[in-house]
Amino acid sequence: MKKIVIQKEEIIRHSLSHIMASSVQELFPGTKFGIGPAIENGFYYDFESPITITPEALLKIEKKMREIIKQNIIFQKRKNTKKEAMELFKNQPYKLELINELKESDITIYECGKFIDLCAGPHVKSAKEISIDAFKLTKIAGAYWRGSEKNKMLTRIYGIGFGTKKELDDYIKLQEEAEKRDHRVLGKNLDLFVFSDLVGKGLPLFTEKGSIIRRILEKFIVDEESKRGYKHVYTPDIGRVELYKTSGHYPYYKESMYPVMKIDNEELILRPMTCPHHFELYNSKMRTYKELPLRIAELAKQFRYEKSGELTGLIRVRAFCLADAHIFCIKEKAEEEINNVLDLIEYVSSVLGLKTGEDYRYRLSLGNQTDNKKYYKDDKSWGFAESVLRKVLKERKANFFEAQNEAAFYGPKIDIQMKNFAGKEETAFTVQYDFVMPKRFKLSYVDKDGLKKEPIVIHRSSIGAIERVMAFLIEKYAGALPLWLSPVQAWIIPIGSRHEDYAKDIGERFKISDLRFEIKNENETVSKKIRGGEMQKIPYLLVVGDNEIKENSVNVRSKNKNLGMMKLENFLEKVDSEIKEKK
Amino acid sequence: MKKIVIQKEEIIRHSLSHIMASSVQELFPGTKFGIGPAIENGFYYDFESPITITPEALLKIEKKMREIIKQNIIFQKRKNTKKEAMELFKNQPYKLELINELKESDITIYECGKFIDLCAGPHVKSAKEISIDAFKLTKIAGAYWRGSEKNKMLTRIYGIGFGTKKELDDYIKLQEEAEKRDHRVLGKNLDLFVFSDLVGKGLPLFTEKGSIIRRILEKFIVDEESKRGYKHVYTPDIGRVELYKTSGHYPYYKESMYPVMKIDNEELILRPMTCPHHFELYNSKMRTYKELPLRIAELAKQFRYEKSGELTGLIRVRAFCLADAHIFCIKEKAEEEINNVLDLIEYVSSVLGLKTGEDYRYRLSLGNQTDNKKYYKDDKSWGFAESVLRKVLKERKANFFEAQNEAAFYGPKIDIQMKNFAGKEETAFTVQYDFVMPKRFKLSYVDKDGLKKEPIVIHRSSIGAIERVMAFLIEKYAGALPLWLSPVQAWIIPIGSRHEDYAKDIGERFKISDLRFEIKNENETVSKKIRGGEMQKIPYLLVVGDNEIKENSVNVRSKNKNLGMMKLENFLEKVDSEIKEKK
Repeated sequence: MKKIVIQKEEIIRHSLSHIMASSVQELFPGTKFGIGPAIENGFYYDFESPITITPEALLKIEKKMREIIKQNIIFQKRKNTKKEAMELFKNQPYKLELINELKESDITIYECGKFIDLCAGPHVKSAKEISIDAFKLTKIAGAYWRGSEKNKMLTRIYGIGFGTKKELDDYIKLQEEAEKRDHRVLGKNLDLFVFSDLVGKGLPLFTEKGSIIRRILEKFIVDEESKRGYKHVYTPDIGRVELYKTSGHYPYYKESMYPVMKIDNEELILRPMTCPHHFELYNSKMRTYKELPLRIAELAKQFRYEKSGELTGLIRVRAFCLADAHIFCIKEKAEEEINNVLDLIEYVSSVLGLKTGEDYRYRLSLGNQTDNKKYYKDDKSWGFAESVLRKVLKERKANFFEAQNEAAFYGPKIDIQMKNFAGKEETAFTVQYDFVMPKRFKLSYVDKDGLKKEPIVIHRSSIGAIERVMAFLIEKYAGALPLWLSPVQAWIIPIGSRHEDYAKDIGERFKISDLRFEIKNENETVSKKIRGGEMQKIPYLLVVGDNEIKENSVNVRSKNKNLGMMKLENFLEKVDSEIKEKK
Repeated sequence: MKKIVIQKEEIIRHSLSHIMASSVQELFPGTKFGIGPAIENGFYYDFESPITITPEALLKIEKKMREIIKQNIIFQKRKNTKKEAMELFKNQPYKLELINELKESDITIYECGKFIDLCAGPHVKSAKEISIDAFKLTKIAGAYWRGSEKNKMLTRIYGIGFGTKKELDDYIKLQEEAEKRDHRVLGKNLDLFVFSDLVGKGLPLFTEKGSIIRRILEKFIVDEESKRGYKHVYTPDIGRVELYKTSGHYPYYKESMYPVMKIDNEELILRPMTCPHHFELYNSKMRTYKELPLRIAELAKQFRYEKSGELTGLIRVRAFCLADAHIFCIKEKAEEEINNVLDLIEYVSSVLGLKTGEDYRYRLSLGNQTDNKKYYKDDKSWGFAESVLRKVLKERKANFFEAQNEAAFYGPKIDIQMKNFAGKEETAFTVQYDFVMPKRFKLSYVDKDGLKKEPIVIHRSSIGAIERVMAFLIEKYAGALPLWLSPVQAWIIPIGSRHEDYAKDIGERFKISDLRFEIKNENETVSKKIRGGEMQKIPYLLVVGDNEIKENSVNVRSKNKNLGMMKLENFLEKVDSEIKEKK
């Protein structure tokens, strides 16, 4: 786990925003000041400047900031009356607006050098505490005063700031690396997926190469889940709105659902989740205790309306394919089934190279039984469900934390919190304990004693949305996916035209082994082809010339390293075992 | 090919409708007569009878018909004036309505025994020509006069009729067999798919077993197509309406498309076809002559609005998965590519056990260049396209026929006409030559000479919609699918509880070979289990008892036959080779 931002850094960042404002005041007299808070990793300040602030000006401001810091100025808290404050900021309309809204007792003013600001603090005592080379101004953007389009657009200057130069450098390096790993950039460069304005926003089209990755992941999931007793089904991508009214999702999720389509007398809708379809499949025949636990799984297409501003490559899309499942079981088996689910999640993650603690952790998301609007009222069931989830996490010594008020409306859940390369954590998918839907859909089974009883349902994914996990893997591996997932596993590069036949022979041999390869016989230098192959993140670049023909060998280059000449059969054995082990 | 209905049979059927009407007139005096044409395999007549005609009455009518036929009555054509006709049918309001609409010269009247009818003929000369035991009345239904709900509902009696008793018996047997093979019935009995009112009409939910069949078929198609140079992709199930306006489909297909969904400023729609998505993928980068022919394929979900009355099991649904592809190539390569497509279709069909001539034939569907509303105007391109398709079919000596006015609006096509068990022929899918879409989507490639040129597009499927082919296979095999497609390939049946461990050992061995099996250790007799397995169309029923344990064997039953005891390893070799050969 990366450490959480500490209080001290926030104080430094906020103080830096004052020092930046002070610099702007000196450099551009007549500037009107908005507000300047600390943010994650840095700070900003909003200005209305008489001249346009250019990117070049940032360097000047930075220089001035360093001068001010070197003066070891003191941050002095002042207590003024509202009237005094009004007088002090008479030329600062934005400050006046804020003062007007404050109670007399809430007005605090800070003085640092020549700059006086309306501010609640806290700041460093002296600029001494700020390292002169641990901050950097990063960009200029427009921002409406108080976030409303009705107000004037101000100029916002962003900066980043840390306790030490090393921390700053590490952060910059991480950001540069994250940009290089951006799956949207790599997706284009490696020809994995595209978007089309004509098709629509947030709707990726997977090319042949992207589709190979996707198909392998899908097969891996279906095979692994089937092995573990899941029954993989296909149900329709659409359904009657009635499904979601019955489930109770409609009032909660209407905003992120697609518009209703009226056909004859039916109201159809693109499904935002799979549960009702699986419940209907469960209900399609009488079930008995012998069939439980019944685990219905599906690679389920789902459709959710995401605001266009929130669409992000494959991470946030408007149509996706979730490796979904619903486990129907008796309450007493819930603990065992949830343990099985976490086993599966951890197995799948480990195969993909994701490590618990580093790449993901669990969040136990709890409800709030005082909020009957947000959560179904059933204290006893909530209590039982929460205790089961907590017990499972504790007993398996899972890396988890608890969060209040994050449950589904129908029960508590375990969220799988994925952290991307740059350290940003998001809920990738969930495991939910549900005692509400079985009632709503009248799910039942005939028990040993001949009586009809109600099962509970565990909603879960094992890997999340295929699109999202692809984005995650592309970024984690910076495009250089493990061999078993690589759309092209090898390039065969003949040195000259007289080696092309041998290259083809190797190709024929590779076909037998189901290897994915390309023969690069374009009229280009070998070194250019090698560079090209490295740019395309091809796992194995195989150069073949006279020597290789003589020795029935290939000259192997992998991950920017030359592994030298290898007998063809040895190479095949090597890749075969790597693929089998999903390396 | 089953022989086409001949003129003679139609004459017999039409004459039978007169004899039926004559019988009704005698049995139920006061009946008003509608019309009574010959139809496929039989005939009907519409009546307004003073009493309700019950199913039991059909036997009486049949008996009366035989009496009339035995009288060897003559069918006599009469020529009457309109006035005479009006007098003759003064008590027959429906006939009067028809007479009123006829020209004087078009009025012909036939007399057969006591029954006089307004009719254009032709009929048999004498009832002698009709075999007394080659017809049967089959059902009673309601039918609006002249097909309009605004008119009165009449009683329609259906009959079937043939030249000989043998033909009638064969037909009845075929119908009974077809009913037994009905995929809707088998789908339920074999637990392959279900429908749910809550999910919506025409939207099948595949159970685990049905999903296994589907997944195997899908993998077979993707693997086979990939081997043949297709690039399998994933594109979104929805898209902007603009896509179909650009393609020109919208005005032609709007009626069978789902309603538009408005999101932000976009109008989205469930896709009724895949072409525009693949065109956008083609257009996502600059293409060169080296990339052609480019074959983009997809297991594509498609959505079409079918009237609820036309929905039929998996045959006609509202959402389906088409094994779709678009081949981008130069005009000069069209012939070769279409040949490749037909090779693929014939290979896939043969693997599924479908025979050309027996199960399907081709239809060359041509346009009509005088109809500029229905068909894109470009005589030269139509001429070329039609000649290419015809040449391919002729040169490969394909079983085909030509049909005018059946082309797509953008070009001629080859339809794959599938015939079901009962002999009903339907277009399963098509191969289309398209010179219009490339213009509409501005498709281009850079040729050797550096110039931008326009490719043509071949739209094609290789197997059609997965749902439909499943229905077809279920009916063809009466549910007893070939081993490689069977959701459960074997039941292991221990004779007593002391043989259960051995059954489990066999199961473990089967898991290694990826066989799909169930161990039947319910407390039932072995013979009952065998009957159950035969009902469930399980390919192999393996009974194990003391002898089998001693000999490390299984007692094999397959397709209602006892194959005797077999060493386990021999059995495994046998099924392994059958599965490999897709038997």
